[in-house]
Amino acid sequence: MDTRPSLAQLGLSTGKKARLHRILHQHGLRNGTALFLPYDQGLEHGPRDFFANPAAGDPRYIVRLAVEGGFNGIAVQIGLAEKFYWDYAGEVPLILKLNGKTDIPSDAEALSPMHAGVAEAVRLGADAVGYTLYVGSPAQERDFAQLRTVRQAAERFGMPLVVWAYPRGEAIEAKGGKDSYYAVDYAARTASELGADVVKVNFPHPEKRTDVKAPYGGEYSTQQAIDAVVRSANRTLVLVSGGERAGDDAMLEKARQSMEAGATGLIFGRNVWQREHDESLRFVARLQEILAKHPSL
Amino acid sequence: MDTRPSLAQLGLSTGKKARLHRILHQHGLRNGTALFLPYDQGLEHGPRDFFANPAAGDPRYIVRLAVEGGFNGIAVQIGLAEKFYWDYAGEVPLILKLNGKTDIPSDAEALSPMHAGVAEAVRLGADAVGYTLYVGSPAQERDFAQLRTVRQAAERFGMPLVVWAYPRGEAIEAKGGKDSYYAVDYAARTASELGADVVKVNFPHPEKRTDVKAPYGGEYSTQQAIDAVVRSANRTLVLVSGGERAGDDAMLEKARQSMEAGATGLIFGRNVWQREHDESLRFVARLQEILAKHPSL
Amino acid sequence: MDTRPSLAQLGLSTGKKARLHRILHQHGLRNGTALFLPYDQGLEHGPRDFFANPAAGDPRYIVRLAVEGGFNGIAVQIGLAEKFYWDYAGEVPLILKLNGKTDIPSDAEALSPMHAGVAEAVRLGADAVGYTLYVGSPAQERDFAQLRTVRQAAERFGMPLVVWAYPRGEAIEAKGGKDSYYAVDYAARTASELGADVVKVNFPHPEKRTDVKAPYGGEYSTQQAIDAVVRSANRTLVLVSGGERAGDDAMLEKARQSMEAGATGLIFGRNVWQREHDESLRFVARLQEILAKHPSL
Amino acid sequence: MDTRPSLAQLGLSTGKKARLHRILHQHGLRNGTALFLPYDQGLEHGPRDFFANPAAGDPRYIVRLAVEGGFNGIAVQIGLAEKFYWDYAGEVPLILKLNGKTDIPSDAEALSPMHAGVAEAVRLGADAVGYTLYVGSPAQERDFAQLRTVRQAAERFGMPLVVWAYPRGEAIEAKGGKDSYYAVDYAARTASELGADVVKVNFPHPEKRTDVKAPYGGEYSTQQAIDAVVRSANRTLVLVSGGERAGDDAMLEKARQSMEAGATGLIFGRNVWQREHDESLRFVARLQEILAKHPSL
Amino acid sequence: MDTRPSLAQLGLSTGKKARLHRILHQHGLRNGTALFLPYDQGLEHGPRDFFANPAAGDPRYIVRLAVEGGFNGIAVQIGLAEKFYWDYAGEVPLILKLNGKTDIPSDAEALSPMHAGVAEAVRLGADAVGYTLYVGSPAQERDFAQLRTVRQAAERFGMPLVVWAYPRGEAIEAKGGKDSYYAVDYAARTASELGADVVKVNFPHPEKRTDVKAPYGGEYSTQQAIDAVVRSANRTLVLVSGGERAGDDAMLEKARQSMEAGATGLIFGRNVWQREHDESLRFVARLQEILAKHPSL
Repeated sequence: MDTRPSLAQLGLSTGKKARLHRILHQHGLRNGTALFLPYDQGLEHGPRDFFANPAAGDPRYIVRLAVEGGFNGIAVQIGLAEKFYWDYAGEVPLILKLNGKTDIPSDAEALSPMHAGVAEAVRLGADAVGYTLYVGSPAQERDFAQLRTVRQAAERFGMPLVVWAYPRGEAIEAKGGKDSYYAVDYAARTASELGADVVKVNFPHPEKRTDVKAPYGGEYSTQQAIDAVVRSANRTLVLVSGGERAGDDAMLEKARQSMEAGATGLIFGRNVWQREHDESLRFVARLQEILAKHPSL
Repeated sequence: MDTRPSLAQLGLSTGKKARLHRILHQHGLRNGTALFLPYDQGLEHGPRDFFANPAAGDPRYIVRLAVEGGFNGIAVQIGLAEKFYWDYAGEVPLILKLNGKTDIPSDAEALSPMHAGVAEAVRLGADAVGYTLYVGSPAQERDFAQLRTVRQAAERFGMPLVVWAYPRGEAIEAKGGKDSYYAVDYAARTASELGADVVKVNFPHPEKRTDVKAPYGGEYSTQQAIDAVVRSANRTLVLVSGGERAGDDAMLEKARQSMEAGATGLIFGRNVWQREHDESLRFVARLQEILAKHPSL
Repeated sequence: MDTRPSLAQLGLSTGKKARLHRILHQHGLRNGTALFLPYDQGLEHGPRDFFANPAAGDPRYIVRLAVEGGFNGIAVQIGLAEKFYWDYAGEVPLILKLNGKTDIPSDAEALSPMHAGVAEAVRLGADAVGYTLYVGSPAQERDFAQLRTVRQAAERFGMPLVVWAYPRGEAIEAKGGKDSYYAVDYAARTASELGADVVKVNFPHPEKRTDVKAPYGGEYSTQQAIDAVVRSANRTLVLVSGGERAGDDAMLEKARQSMEAGATGLIFGRNVWQREHDESLRFVARLQEILAKHPSL
Repeated sequence: MDTRPSLAQLGLSTGKKARLHRILHQHGLRNGTALFLPYDQGLEHGPRDFFANPAAGDPRYIVRLAVEGGFNGIAVQIGLAEKFYWDYAGEVPLILKLNGKTDIPSDAEALSPMHAGVAEAVRLGADAVGYTLYVGSPAQERDFAQLRTVRQAAERFGMPLVVWAYPRGEAIEAKGGKDSYYAVDYAARTASELGADVVKVNFPHPEKRTDVKAPYGGEYSTQQAIDAVVRSANRTLVLVSGGERAGDDAMLEKARQSMEAGATGLIFGRNVWQREHDESLRFVARLQEILAKHPSL
Repeated sequence: MDTRPSLAQLGLSTGKKARLHRILHQHGLRNGTALFLPYDQGLEHGPRDFFANPAAGDPRYIVRLAVEGGFNGIAVQIGLAEKFYWDYAGEVPLILKLNGKTDIPSDAEALSPMHAGVAEAVRLGADAVGYTLYVGSPAQERDFAQLRTVRQAAERFGMPLVVWAYPRGEAIEAKGGKDSYYAVDYAARTASELGADVVKVNFPHPEKRTDVKAPYGGEYSTQQAIDAVVRSANRTLVLVSGGERAGDDAMLEKARQSMEAGATGLIFGRNVWQREHDESLRFVARLQEILAKHPSL
């Protein structure tokens, strides 16, 4: 807990502070924590993610679920934001995702191309923008260039910048894979160095030690690993991602450790909406129980 | 039928709604359905497509055919629009196709380069613009970048954006090919996520199951597949493409299933104009009989 | 003859019509036909083309030859236009060639880079601009992007756009080569679809049937082939290129068939100036005899 | 000493001179020498560099260390500058590092992408900007283009430009590696030719003679080598980098030779902060003893 | 001699004529000839070029040498111009070199990236700008694009454009190498076609006949070759490069033949400053004796 910085310490401009305050203190539990609902899988993986619960293929269902579940925000691409956010505009904060890609071509030189800009987030009444950075990809030159334009526009508009910091690409695969402690820790730091206000990370797996850089080859508990990742993000707020759907107990334990480490919140998609409606809300309630134990001071 | 959204539900700006209303309710059957005549094959395949009916090589013949046949619109490239649309300007809506390519070089990293802009569509009195997106191509980075500029200009000018969502490229070939249910479903969703107002898809082939992603390997009827594709497009209106010329009964059955699934209409080119003039009009009449059964409510 | 469109039918803006009228009706035979003198070989092939007649290496000689021979225009690159056109400015129309390349590096992914813009053509008093499009090249993405900026600037300035439509690149080589009927026909159509006002094509060789796309594998006479090429260009005026120097009778027959097919004129360079001065003028006179038989109606 | 130019000789604009004067004469020893604390390793190498002294992972600790140690400046990326410099703004000069990269993908075609601009350095009250140039990289085309925009903006804003001149990439590896006398000498010169006001170089290793260009294959002492490097930089001020942590005596000898050669100062990061706090300050004091012996005249 | 055009014939704008007049008639021998001192080798080859005469590594020494030797101009990169030209500003004309590269990475796809612009030449009081064009390189697309922006800016500012026309790259190597008569002749012509006011060429070697294009395979004397090269440049003034240091007699003979052919002057660097100071001036005097014999009429 003691590593989570307060909004006052983050070096935020007035507009960014106003919008983050709205997300963290005027929605959800209103206690400085956050639970986000990401819904970019239709682009990132295609409709196959909706076969488990076909209702979830309908963006209207998802936006309503975010409102009903008391989420702090919903993250969608421009197309869905334009067509579906109006119905519930203002009832749940919008994080406009500015880039994304299909998972069809090779990921070896992963880059997530932009398809929307910060000004459009302003137009749609969004409270934050999201950008996927593929840390370690051979395409980092173009990635950093894209991120730079986003960061500068976000600065200009006072729009909080949430970076999906994902280790990815052939070099990451050769150095232990995308969810090793090494990779996640580096990704969190990179987002912070490049100016993210909030960073979304995968939960680190310290047991993946093969081929990782020297100090990460040691023995670390998952709590030690997530603690270090949050520290590496320093004054960038941390959101821990749910990833693929897994067992509820494992997910809740991950959530507990993350909040214990000083994360600001969770961003769970498939683990929420790949189940029937009421079951989704029950699972959300359990996550919120955990968040309730870690209010900002 | 119940899955086709009304114009009022699409989150459209005033200009886009005005132009789509003109296309769907003031041309063709004037019942909210659409029959489009695409004529970009001279660039996409070259003049070889006109050997079956040499008259069709003359753009003037085609524009007149669109007027005579009561089409809701004709889609052509900038060169033909500038030289031939004046003769019948206003008599049939113009969809200006903004990108295109020859089929001579390799399709492995397919990208359809732009050769015109939205402002030119405005100048020519067009009621929509068309953009070909090669979903799954390794060139998706440049493709998304192009589409973004088009979508933003279309938003600025109130110009409806029709996306030709075509699975294409070496990765698509390795994952079951361009007309599998998997590929078409993903393509429809991608267009929707990226902000298409209307999406043109190929008719899905659920029997192509080799190498497709997990849930698509199951047994599905073509009706189930096209139903799902239209759902994946959600509030993006769906046009189903005719593709290469095939037998009339097969084409009509495809048209019936598409409209039954909630598609807004059809976009048939070679199946129309690769036959003699009067025969073309007779075939068009049969398509219109089907459209007449699926008015917007 | 009946396939050559009149200037009034081409959908031209006022400025383009004025300039084409000047070229076609106030220079040369003043009968709506055209004979152009291209002089970009010093860049395209290097000075080796001038060894046959060293005098031709001097641009001043060539500009004067164009005036003496009563040509409808001379096509040169920016460097020569700036240094040599002043001497005879206004006496013969200038077509400023906007792109070009050396023939030293590989042609596999041919692209002709730009080195001048339309505004410079305006500044120099040119009556048209020339752009080389390598139809079928793997570099078509960048080629189309270049052409788009040229076409839009030409539209803005009312400057006629002449497209050198050359099939080129490794895929063309694999599909029958650059002067097959298939390749030339496709090239003519592509220029028309992309908005050329005038297209320069090579004379088609229908006897090159190996590897060409299906309908072009049949038996066609050269007259049938050039007829089809002119039809494919539809409302884009056609100029037939002389190419490498060949026998006079063959060249004159080519000219005759082209004009018979409805071409607007000829663009002959090496066949003209790779011979001694007076002989050049005699050959030009023979070409003009042919043009005289095909006035615009 | 006699090779170190005075500020008056460097051809500096008023703004650049004012800011360099502030760095060199109003901070640190105030004698025209400089000791900089670089802190871009969190991005360049990842958090692994902080395992030796976990406190150093906290940017706040580092900024305070720079203040306590009497450094002439601290070099950080935009993210940390925005979040941590405010606390001590003005107490120690800020060098905003404008580009950087992770060390995950291959270095064969090394390029350090930009993620911030000179205008942002102005906004944050920085006194210089830093740019990493990978001298000899196959990516030099894009590198020079980036540097050009930085140099021109720095000129416009009167902001001193510090170039991290690092030999890097596959060709450097093939020609003796990145810290040979040959490579370091060439790098220093390149920065000077391209307009750096200050250049950061690695200490040259004249004993690395394999594969280097001809005259560098001879026998040279390290003093001869660093003398030559400083001469090659001519009127560009030289900072010698500490590099990886090594033994104290070796580091101090390196510092002595550098200052003797006419360098303006040192830029030591890991050698400073990869040890416990008080030990860091003691080491800094020893470096400053050396600097004190080489005041600007 | 009769092939050297006068300034009045070159189609120059007022500003270009004024500046070339200053270079050719108000400096050096003031007789319309030119002797230039190029000093870009520190970037192009690195400091190794200065080992022969270490004093030459100091740009101040070189600028002074240009003044003392009565050169018509000195060509340097932006960094040295900003730091060293002020001392002697106006005493010798400055040619600001706008692009350049290190010789570390492979030359197979040679391109000389830009690091300064024409406006900076204006700011520094330069009388010309220099651009290296690698004729025949596979990178010609980007090269031509760069040159285009330079040529247009030079036109706008009335700044003479000197093109270093260097055959280079893998295709040149495969066609006889960079100093064959074929390659040099083509390079001179290319610079002229693309709009150079002055072209710097290497002295041609007609004896290199292997793999060159057809007519260049014949027997030619060096005088015939350099005559032809100057003719190919037509109204672009020719400077002949000294290249690597060679024997004095050979260099002087080269100079004589060049001037005899109609070249405007010489651009000798290493042959001048890779020797002791007074010896340099003596060699310069011998070059000027030759130039004195070829005044402009």
